[in-house]
Amino acid sequence: RVRELATPLHPADLADLFEQLATDWREPLAAALGDMLDADTLSEMNEWVRDEVIATLEPAQVAEAVSEMDTDDAVALIEEMEPEDAQAVLDEMAPDDRVAIETALSYPEESAGRLMQRELIAVPEHLGIGQVIDWLRDHPETGMDFWEIFVVDPAHKPVGTMRLSWVLTTPRDIPVADVMQREQTLIPVTMDQEEVALRFQKYALISAAVVDEDGRLVGVITVDDIVHIISQEAGEDILKMTGAGDGDINEPVLDSYKARVKWLIANLGTALISSTVIAQFEGTIEKMVILAALTPIVASIGGNAGTQTMAVAVRALATDQLTEANTWRTIRREIRVALLNGLTIAALLGLGVAVLLGNMQLGAVIAAAALFNIMVAGLAGVLVPVTLNHFRADPAVASSVFVTMTTDTMGFLAFLTLASLAGLTG
Amino acid sequence: RVRELATPLHPADLADLFEQLATDWREPLAAALGDMLDADTLSEMNEWVRDEVIATLEPAQVAEAVSEMDTDDAVALIEEMEPEDAQAVLDEMAPDDRVAIETALSYPEESAGRLMQRELIAVPEHLGIGQVIDWLRDHPETGMDFWEIFVVDPAHKPVGTMRLSWVLTTPRDIPVADVMQREQTLIPVTMDQEEVALRFQKYALISAAVVDEDGRLVGVITVDDIVHIISQEAGEDILKMTGAGDGDINEPVLDSYKARVKWLIANLGTALISSTVIAQFEGTIEKMVILAALTPIVASIGGNAGTQTMAVAVRALATDQLTEANTWRTIRREIRVALLNGLTIAALLGLGVAVLLGNMQLGAVIAAAALFNIMVAGLAGVLVPVTLNHFRADPAVASSVFVTMTTDTMGFLAFLTLASLAGLTG
Ligand SMILES: [Mg+2]
Ligand SMILES: [Mg+2]
Ligand SMILES: [Mg+2]
Ligand SMILES: [Mg+2]
Ligand SMILES: [Mg+2]
Ligand SMILES: [Mg+2]
Ligand SMILES: [Mg+2]
Ligand SMILES: [Mg+2]
Ligand SMILES: [Mg+2]
Ligand SMILES: [Mg+2]
Ligand SMILES: [Mg+2]
Ligand SMILES: [Mg+2]
Ligand SMILES: [Mg+2]
Repeated sequence: RVRELATPLHPADLADLFEQLATDWREPLAAALGDMLDADTLSEMNEWVRDEVIATLEPAQVAEAVSEMDTDDAVALIEEMEPEDAQAVLDEMAPDDRVAIETALSYPEESAGRLMQRELIAVPEHLGIGQVIDWLRDHPETGMDFWEIFVVDPAHKPVGTMRLSWVLTTPRDIPVADVMQREQTLIPVTMDQEEVALRFQKYALISAAVVDEDGRLVGVITVDDIVHIISQEAGEDILKMTGAGDGDINEPVLDSYKARVKWLIANLGTALISSTVIAQFEGTIEKMVILAALTPIVASIGGNAGTQTMAVAVRALATDQLTEANTWRTIRREIRVALLNGLTIAALLGLGVAVLLGNMQLGAVIAAAALFNIMVAGLAGVLVPVTLNHFRADPAVASSVFVTMTTDTMGFLAFLTLASLAGLTG
Repeated sequence: RVRELATPLHPADLADLFEQLATDWREPLAAALGDMLDADTLSEMNEWVRDEVIATLEPAQVAEAVSEMDTDDAVALIEEMEPEDAQAVLDEMAPDDRVAIETALSYPEESAGRLMQRELIAVPEHLGIGQVIDWLRDHPETGMDFWEIFVVDPAHKPVGTMRLSWVLTTPRDIPVADVMQREQTLIPVTMDQEEVALRFQKYALISAAVVDEDGRLVGVITVDDIVHIISQEAGEDILKMTGAGDGDINEPVLDSYKARVKWLIANLGTALISSTVIAQFEGTIEKMVILAALTPIVASIGGNAGTQTMAVAVRALATDQLTEANTWRTIRREIRVALLNGLTIAALLGLGVAVLLGNMQLGAVIAAAALFNIMVAGLAGVLVPVTLNHFRADPAVASSVFVTMTTDTMGFLAFLTLASLAGLTG
């Protein structure tokens, strides 16, 4: 019955069904599906959900599914498993499949070597287009989809590439050498996936050749896998900036706790530091308690302005728009925006305080403090991520902690110092 | 000299060069390049930079470049221009090119109708594979890249699709009807680009057929354009949450100011509201000024915890992981994480305050307030975006304002109320 209902579903939809079900229902569904729970469905599943489902299968069953996958999907599955479980699965596999996966696993995490599939079509330069087509027709057993045919020299180094639409629109007797494009984007096997994704975006690639240290063709990366990486890399910055870890709603509660609590502790530390600023002004506040209610406003508005600028800088760095060449231009630009924002907010806040509390001088003081803090926020919002990036740290991670510490401390300090100096409390 | 240096550059690299140059240098570079500044380079350029460059060209020059583009790239360029300028360019174009663009512009912004190109290959079902290949060889003048051949009925409705690798691995005498796959993802012409991008990701599509209201094939969307949308849609949530507008570093200062200041004003409003909470406790603070220094800590830690949860919820909604089916499960999950985070932070903060200030009771009060506020933050962090999404508002926009207002107000209220009740100040 379950198998009947599942038959018309695309593997991606079947995978979604597992994700939407509560944990208790996943094992019975897997059991009911039996061998319909195939390689494609497992490849599409969220990693945490797949973990649960795989735990209910025998290593031999997993090995069979993995053998049917392209190397990239097989590696994506194996690399997320516990080492013992992964070894149990690898032990059940045919030697050639096992070696392919072990080779991929020898490359760094999130590198091109793990993203590539080894299954590809490569032909020598001296063939004619007709011979290439005949060879393809004689080898339907490869049974895979490909989008590009790579042309290699006798040492298996790439010399050119042909998109399939070029092959299809060319007469049989034209040599491959006349159809292929010699310039192509070659991906070194150790390149980070984020860099790979930027190349795909920039040059509108559908697939790209991966080469080893000796320049030999070892695999191909296809854009359908890159779209997941682009979505993940672009989406993870928001999670990193707030310290939310992987931010996957299928992640176990304890893992989420561990990932998030460390940033909350860091935030606690910086909040304690900035609160010592307020503590220094106990005497001032005692004389004019309304300052205690107004101080957080100056800090909050600075924090918001700083986070805006930081979000812009983090995205610009991630997309390679912000580089060494235009850093100063961007800083000047952000200061101009901060000045306009600061003047607007200062006017509103100063006027509001002056009118509501009937204290012109207090209005002037809070306006000046807000303007100052928004300018500081604009500067910190771009300098912090740019500096982290310069020292090869991820500009999204921890930017937020530095920026809010700066805007909190400077907001408290500016407002309470100005209030003291203005003689409001004396 | 400039032309010589630019010759080996890929259009995407030439476009990057314009982006990296300061504004004053863009016009002279455009002038020096002359007709080397072609359709491909303009298509690759950041919209704000392209605006500047196009302003230096005659409408006839722009019209010539636009005529060489695929419809999707032409529309992307025209839709960003000022209406009068766009009209001037359209007036210079050949009638058929103009009609194609005007049709695309008649579809809603960010819809499939604007993303699709009209250039595609469609064949009738009764042909053999050999006839399809012969036809393609006889029509090399289409000169475009394609990745898929669509099969249509006499009314031009799609009945199937063939990936080019299937065409190339099939003998000439097999009929198209036996090679094509009947199930395919059809994109309605009015579908929002975010939804289109999710389909591409989910079903690992390279290209997809776009159909009008009558189900007729009117265009094709290719994955190289989708990668930009995925990157933009995933990246814009971080900008929307902080109220940073488009967040493009090439945007004019005044536009950035207008986009950001309205969120700063909203933040100012909510900060004023939460500060009235503190103002209610003037008497309490007067008796124990250290409360003024500690109150912002409770608010800050709640704000951070709320932003973490909100980031997770916003991403999960954007990627269709969080749906009606698992909303309650996700809320329960986030409450558990909040409880663990809250207990940890409460213990650290309570202990710290008790030891540093030598006041056990104050430590207990701030611990209880922090735990309460982190729980509130967890609940608000998921409820606010889920509620916005339920009412078809963008869950990223303005989530931040609601969540920080809640955590600020609740943090102030919980801490100062507990401090009063505990008799700390009486
Ligand atoms: Mg899915
Ligand atoms: Mg195999
Ligand atoms: Mg793949
Ligand atoms: Mg895949
Ligand atoms: Mg990364
Ligand atoms: Mg990143
Ligand atoms: Mg570019
Ligand atoms: Mg044309
Ligand atoms: Mg296109
Ligand atoms: Mg394009
Ligand atoms: Mg959108
Ligand atoms: Mg969105
Ligand atoms: Mg949605």
